[in-house]
Amino acid sequence: MPILQPIVNLVELLHQQGLRHVVVSPGSRSAPLTLAVARHPGLQVRVVPDERTAGFTALGMAQQLRQPVAIICTSGSAVYNLSPAVVEAYFQHVPLLLLTADRPHEWLYQQDGQTIDQVGLFGSHVKRSYDLPADYEHADARWFIERTINEAYTLSLSGAAGPVHVNVPVREPFYPKADETFRYERGRVITNLPTETTLPPTTWHALLNEWEATDRKLILAGQSPYDEALAGLLAKISTEQLIPVAGEILSNLGRNEAGFITQTDTLLAQIDEDVLEELRPDLLVTFGNGFLARNLKTYFRRYPAVRHWHISATDDRIIDPFRSLTTVIPMEPLAFFAKLFDDIDYKRFREGADDEDDGEFLSNWQGADQAARRVVELSLSNAPFTDWVATQQLLEQLPTGSHLHLANSMPVRYANLCGLDARQQVRVWSNRGVSGIDGCLSTAVGAATQTTSLVTVLIGDIAFFYDRNALWQRDLPANLRIVLLNNASGHIFRMIDGSGQQPELETYFETPHALTAERTCADHDVDYAQVADRASLAKALATFFAPATRPKLLEISTDKYVNKSAFAAYKQLVKS
Amino acid sequence: MPILQPIVNLVELLHQQGLRHVVVSPGSRSAPLTLAVARHPGLQVRVVPDERTAGFTALGMAQQLRQPVAIICTSGSAVYNLSPAVVEAYFQHVPLLLLTADRPHEWLYQQDGQTIDQVGLFGSHVKRSYDLPADYEHADARWFIERTINEAYTLSLSGAAGPVHVNVPVREPFYPKADETFRYERGRVITNLPTETTLPPTTWHALLNEWEATDRKLILAGQSPYDEALAGLLAKISTEQLIPVAGEILSNLGRNEAGFITQTDTLLAQIDEDVLEELRPDLLVTFGNGFLARNLKTYFRRYPAVRHWHISATDDRIIDPFRSLTTVIPMEPLAFFAKLFDDIDYKRFREGADDEDDGEFLSNWQGADQAARRVVELSLSNAPFTDWVATQQLLEQLPTGSHLHLANSMPVRYANLCGLDARQQVRVWSNRGVSGIDGCLSTAVGAATQTTSLVTVLIGDIAFFYDRNALWQRDLPANLRIVLLNNASGHIFRMIDGSGQQPELETYFETPHALTAERTCADHDVDYAQVADRASLAKALATFFAPATRPKLLEISTDKYVNKSAFAAYKQLVKS
Repeated sequence: MPILQPIVNLVELLHQQGLRHVVVSPGSRSAPLTLAVARHPGLQVRVVPDERTAGFTALGMAQQLRQPVAIICTSGSAVYNLSPAVVEAYFQHVPLLLLTADRPHEWLYQQDGQTIDQVGLFGSHVKRSYDLPADYEHADARWFIERTINEAYTLSLSGAAGPVHVNVPVREPFYPKADETFRYERGRVITNLPTETTLPPTTWHALLNEWEATDRKLILAGQSPYDEALAGLLAKISTEQLIPVAGEILSNLGRNEAGFITQTDTLLAQIDEDVLEELRPDLLVTFGNGFLARNLKTYFRRYPAVRHWHISATDDRIIDPFRSLTTVIPMEPLAFFAKLFDDIDYKRFREGADDEDDGEFLSNWQGADQAARRVVELSLSNAPFTDWVATQQLLEQLPTGSHLHLANSMPVRYANLCGLDARQQVRVWSNRGVSGIDGCLSTAVGAATQTTSLVTVLIGDIAFFYDRNALWQRDLPANLRIVLLNNASGHIFRMIDGSGQQPELETYFETPHALTAERTCADHDVDYAQVADRASLAKALATFFAPATRPKLLEISTDKYVNKSAFAAYKQLVKS
Repeated sequence: MPILQPIVNLVELLHQQGLRHVVVSPGSRSAPLTLAVARHPGLQVRVVPDERTAGFTALGMAQQLRQPVAIICTSGSAVYNLSPAVVEAYFQHVPLLLLTADRPHEWLYQQDGQTIDQVGLFGSHVKRSYDLPADYEHADARWFIERTINEAYTLSLSGAAGPVHVNVPVREPFYPKADETFRYERGRVITNLPTETTLPPTTWHALLNEWEATDRKLILAGQSPYDEALAGLLAKISTEQLIPVAGEILSNLGRNEAGFITQTDTLLAQIDEDVLEELRPDLLVTFGNGFLARNLKTYFRRYPAVRHWHISATDDRIIDPFRSLTTVIPMEPLAFFAKLFDDIDYKRFREGADDEDDGEFLSNWQGADQAARRVVELSLSNAPFTDWVATQQLLEQLPTGSHLHLANSMPVRYANLCGLDARQQVRVWSNRGVSGIDGCLSTAVGAATQTTSLVTVLIGDIAFFYDRNALWQRDLPANLRIVLLNNASGHIFRMIDGSGQQPELETYFETPHALTAERTCADHDVDYAQVADRASLAKALATFFAPATRPKLLEISTDKYVNKSAFAAYKQLVKS
């Protein structure tokens, strides 16, 4: 057995399990893994020099694929550079397989280069952490590797998907001979069969009774991937059962004929206690990941539902952000709502239930939503050229069926205030697992490599420069479109009341700068254009989405003081 | 008591303990900490947007100061972005105080923004990890905070210095009122008195006997900060006791009249078994952090000393990189060698010991060192313009008493092959704790902020672009000089035999690029010049170190194939 054979074999086994994509950051200790994936005919390998970028690029790829993407890095601090993406993947439920090369453990604390305590390094932010043996002579060691690789791959996908860490100590010599070819030995695939969860009939009927017995029901969607089947089902429930369906831009439930509620941030910011009370649900049904807008969260904490169902097939923690949760329903949202729709109809028919629901609660929500939309439209039409105005212009022009990545921290908020029309069929993504600015651009790059649709990322200047190494990788996808809102500062701190009022705002929070992306684009062969008013932006957007041979960046220059005062005017209007 | 008072007070207590410097990355949850340090009249605060850069900048500052530097960051993945610098600081024994803002723990796993499991996040790579309470009403909580801050500060410096983590959950509302002023209440400083370690007389005499009874003694210095007292003492020992003192460029023991051995990498690469056997010590005495050159490590593993003393007042692990360690001497090297020098003299005088040591072992080492130096000089004079030639030119021109930061991975190796003359009094630094490329530039920036001397960093292209956000901070120090060796690739992989021979070399290891630093310098207001031959470099160096109003970068363009063949010729010469 060649010394590296078990490492070659583990790559083959990952391919047998279904792995197709690997992101590699160059390194020496990781060379056996790198060579094993590079030479494997069934794997596509992307090379990214900066491990922080590599992690987020893989995250974007795995988001798109809904399949695990492997990351290979060398030993030492390289591993820690993956950690911002790992923790985002953990909370965003994105499957990643972290194959970190390591020195054999006897070298730890021996002043050897690039040697740190890698076992369990990601703490509670991976689903599980494994440590492979460095010696392969004993058959038990090879059985352990095979079993571990099977478990790691399936675990990354089962239940709540997420990152899994496999530490791979590699003993010297670890480079094959110059003319050595690899032989991929097929391993034993252990399949973990998928499951479907249903509720026992008595449990289900108790739920149905609760549903039927409650008047004011609200379905509220957290961050969820775009799903036309689910959106269609919710539209039917809303229309036929007269139940408001509300969400945010990250819920991927755009404005539609069913009257989905999309202006939640604005409408829940109003201060009329009577109106707010009229919107309070007796039964709140939530699904998806977290919510974005503080106004929304504050509202549901101040006006808690009497009963609150949360639908999630995978959460094994009690997630109670509104302090109102009463029931966890461990089902897939689509399956739950489909069964609910079927059974409600049946039950109503059978029991001759009261069809004379006057739909007042739905009207309250939809009326408030329309009023909020008018406030937004008025604010935008009254405003000078601002980040928000630019965001609205961009959103209206997004190509049908394209992808939109919304960077933290202000872009995702502006976009949420705008909302999208369902007919645009735009797929919206955002790194809201832990809401960092550290990898938004890299994530979009990774996503763009895995779709032929256009991927537009809307990003602020601090997040852009923070993550500019995203552009430092070969073969940047030509379907990538970067829209950079450059107000020359970390603008969110001016927008937040707390920091906006401090005398230290500029020096210690905003960190103003004079950077533009022009030189960065020139360095990385990205098409660059810059606009600073509505007309120029409209003109630029007219051709921005046309096919190209390289990515494009459109820099939108705005003034932070104008942004601030326009937003203050909007907030004034909301409260008037 | 204002709600934030304990946070204001902990900053005051840190100042009372001795803290003077803080690096802040902007954030909202960290605002109370940021405001408390920004408003404190006794603290100097540096704002760095990218936390990865912030960590290494603080590391460079603390290296210079030999005092703890505090880092403040917000919650979430921001904390993980510090981790590459934290692990480097841990293994390099640099004191850092990591003040990480956090949500109160009840918000963990509640889909709240920027909320991750921060307690103990740095694992075994901090000296200790603390978690402050979020509520301050109870007197015990305030006592706990005061005690913890005292312990954290003193712990970062005591024994082997290193990073200490203090997690700071902050409850809302955490912004002071717009016109609120802070009142710094002095706390109770708990002083941890310094100690000096000595050996009991019987132990010491047993050591002395071993020393006296051994003929071939070698003092070998690992990475150590510049210390003229120690260097002078070792010179006396070498001259009077005829004992070779060897090291690497990071030992900060340059070529001097005492004949310190500096060409260890080259001289230990020779293949004449007889010569190598003649160099083998019976007693090896080491101190300092790890060694750089593989040739050196391999030699001392293949030719282990009979006895091996390692001198370190602070290591509590058995560090045995040569597999020869017999005795750990827990003293400061300066104190140990001073006592040794005194007592040997005394003992030799008293016992009338044989003064007729023929110095053959010293001659062997010094002869081999001189021969190695001739090989290096011949290689460099024969070579076309290469990274190594450029490094030699640079090192010869470094201003007296200036600082030299050597980046991983090739620059530090080239510089080590050159060595320095002790009369230059150059202070040499390198991130060899874990030897990453991720923060070499940021570290030099931080160092330059804390000295009026020139700080030159020699860095390769991959490490430079990886860490280019180092330049994204206000008030870049004008005494910073960046010398960029740009061979348009991760060149080390071509130089290593293993990866250099793989057909995947270019695609999966070198990651070639066409970047130059010109646009990055323009973006960050750094003076830029570029050279590509000996004459131009000599000319550029003539003015490069002159005082300036902003940092300067000198880009040295070389060809990777020329580098490779010139180095191959050197290796051939070594073995001939």
